[in-house]
Amino acid sequence: MIGVVSGERLFRGKVFDVVREDGKDVVEHAPAVAIVAVDGEERVVLVRQPRAGARRELLELPAGILLPGEDPLVGAQRELREETGLHGGDWVPLASFFTTPGFSDELMYVYLATGLDEGDPSPDDDEQITIERYGPDELSGLLETVEDAKTLVGLLLHLRR
Amino acid sequence: MIGVVSGERLFRGKVFDVVREDGKDVVEHAPAVAIVAVDGEERVVLVRQPRAGARRELLELPAGILLPGEDPLVGAQRELREETGLHGGDWVPLASFFTTPGFSDELMYVYLATGLDEGDPSPDDDEQITIERYGPDELSGLLETVEDAKTLVGLLLHLRR
Repeated sequence: MIGVVSGERLFRGKVFDVVREDGKDVVEHAPAVAIVAVDGEERVVLVRQPRAGARRELLELPAGILLPGEDPLVGAQRELREETGLHGGDWVPLASFFTTPGFSDELMYVYLATGLDEGDPSPDDDEQITIERYGPDELSGLLETVEDAKTLVGLLLHLRR
Repeated sequence: MIGVVSGERLFRGKVFDVVREDGKDVVEHAPAVAIVAVDGEERVVLVRQPRAGARRELLELPAGILLPGEDPLVGAQRELREETGLHGGDWVPLASFFTTPGFSDELMYVYLATGLDEGDPSPDDDEQITIERYGPDELSGLLETVEDAKTLVGLLLHLRR
C-alpha cells in the first residue's frame, strides 16, 4: 500500500503508546484477558472498581493486561487469582476480539472457568476491588446494567452455552 | 479525591486525544454508534473494511463516531444510511457500554433497526466498504468468526430477542 509509514511514534505512555500508521493514529496496547468465572455455587464472580476511562466505578469480568510474551491462558489464570483468589478448575476459551478496532490494536481473550477453588486475592496496591457474585437467575437482569463491552460479550456467550 | 489532575493533555490527535487524569493516561474519544440492521429478507447487514487498529479487514456492524452534540439515534441513522443506504424503519436501543473502560472514555450505543428501506450508500472518500448480508440461520456460525466487540454484543443481543 502506498503511504504506509510504520511506527511513527507520537506518544509514549505508561500503559499504551500512540503511533501514526498510514495517516491514522493507533493506540498500541498490550493484549488483555477477561474471565467468566463460575464458583462452586454456580455464581458468576464479577469485580466492581473505579475505572480511569469511565471515570467512575464499573461492574466487570475479572480482567487484566498480559505481561510481555505471556500466554493468554496463563495470564487469565494469573489475573483471576490476583483479583479474586479463585484458581484451579477447568478453562475453555469463549472468544477473542478487538475491543476498538477503529483506533486501538488491543486484543481481548475471554475464557470460561468452572470448578474453581477459593483462595485469597492479592490485588495490586493501586487496585480497589469489590467482589460480587451473581447466581444463574440473576444474569439476565444483570445484563441490563452492565456497561462494559467484554463483560457483555462474556456473559452473553456464557448464557448461550 | 486527592491527586486528581484534570485535563493535562499529553497528545492531540485527529480522532482522539490523550489526557493524564489522577496519574492515569486516558484516551479521550467521541461517543460512537453501531447498528444491527435487519433488511426486508430478515438478513443482518454487515460491513467489511480495513481497520487501522486491527491492521487488516474486519467484518463488523455498520458503525461510526457521533458528530459534536449529535443525538446517538440521529447519528446511528446517519451512519447506517451513509455506509449501506438503508434508512427509515423502526429503531430500538439494544445496549450502551464503554468499549475499553480501562484506558478510554469511548461510549458505544448499539441499536436494532428493522423494516428498513433500501437506498444508495454514500461512504466517505476514505472508506473502502463491502456490504455483506447474513440470514437468521447463518448468525450462530457467524459469531464464531466475528473479531469485534461491539459486533459480538449486537449480534448476541439480537439473537436473544
